[in-house]
Amino acid sequence: MHIGVLGTGTVGRTLAQALVDRGHEVRMGSRAAGNEKAVAWAGQAGPLASEGSFADAAAFGDLSINATAGAASLEALESVGAELLAGKVLIDVANPLQFSEGGPPTLSVCNDDSLGESIQRAFPEARVVKALNTMTAAVMVQPDLVPGAHTVFICGDAMDAKAQVTGLLEEFGWPRAAILDLGDITAARGMEMYLPLWLRIWGATGTAVLNIELRVAE
Amino acid sequence: MHIGVLGTGTVGRTLAQALVDRGHEVRMGSRAAGNEKAVAWAGQAGPLASEGSFADAAAFGDLSINATAGAASLEALESVGAELLAGKVLIDVANPLQFSEGGPPTLSVCNDDSLGESIQRAFPEARVVKALNTMTAAVMVQPDLVPGAHTVFICGDAMDAKAQVTGLLEEFGWPRAAILDLGDITAARGMEMYLPLWLRIWGATGTAVLNIELRVAE
Repeated sequence: MHIGVLGTGTVGRTLAQALVDRGHEVRMGSRAAGNEKAVAWAGQAGPLASEGSFADAAAFGDLSINATAGAASLEALESVGAELLAGKVLIDVANPLQFSEGGPPTLSVCNDDSLGESIQRAFPEARVVKALNTMTAAVMVQPDLVPGAHTVFICGDAMDAKAQVTGLLEEFGWPRAAILDLGDITAARGMEMYLPLWLRIWGATGTAVLNIELRVAE
Repeated sequence: MHIGVLGTGTVGRTLAQALVDRGHEVRMGSRAAGNEKAVAWAGQAGPLASEGSFADAAAFGDLSINATAGAASLEALESVGAELLAGKVLIDVANPLQFSEGGPPTLSVCNDDSLGESIQRAFPEARVVKALNTMTAAVMVQPDLVPGAHTVFICGDAMDAKAQVTGLLEEFGWPRAAILDLGDITAARGMEMYLPLWLRIWGATGTAVLNIELRVAE
């Protein structure tokens, strides 16, 4: 598949590499073509990898992944424009974290809204699926870094888009039984509001290589 | 131990009964002594059970549990007054859920504050421990309703208070290894902000008898 990965940070590079490793053609997008990190990544990732602007990446992709910093995601997607996103699956893995002096990070949107919903509202013709935002990048693409079974959540309004994302998650090594569909895109609220708990668990355990397993009464 | 349970809802009654069952003397508190549900509970729960106002319950307890509705918790505790809470452990199991017409419940406080912190600020001499708010009442006191290992979080500023709460959790059947101390009371933000995710998991799985197990890389 042709996949656009928007964002050149750890999450973007980790996802882009994992996709190339599985045979997908990936274009990494950033604010402007020629971004140093994107060029470096594409240079070492082989012939399936390329880089360009956010719009270049989204135009290239049959599916795109928003791996930009949550606070910058809407601006990045606006630079792509609605037309290039229309009808395509857009996986939103970002968290709207904002970092302030002194205190712990907070969310720039939460409670009665979410980044996932904001993106879906801004681009109503994109088929937005929230996924993978509840863990560190390495675990997203290599779930067996965390011992035992554990859970990845997805949500979105389009069932066929969620089916496509489920397929990608399986390529990353997620067993079908570990993938829980939480329903429509409003579930992005819960998935993003989990972040403050995740950050405290990281603090308490001393590692970000963690996840939660959902356990339900029979 | 003498324990005051503030609140007559499902959570309060479940906790009160579990404590009586383990030999504690419990006074259930409500807005005014003689509350119908509290009288009914105390009447069937035997000689270790009694009921009264919120202040009666807190005065009775060497330790108290806030099991009131989150939106009403500060008012309930104000009716108790700082003096009766000073120096005592106060376990806050409430969630600041507010229910609106049409939409999903939201939190009345979150992101840069929490109910747990609000209570600790309002009653600085109480030793507030947030615990058990991340699951349904039945699971709080009978963790084996959920199969396998799963996690209960606690947080608070006073280590000795958390040790005491850990002991109570063990009485309820929580193995020591399942109890994760997330640090000071500001971790109540994460514990409370998990609720929207928990509600969506309930919706997706069809049962509230669920919990999460924390899995961490070795």
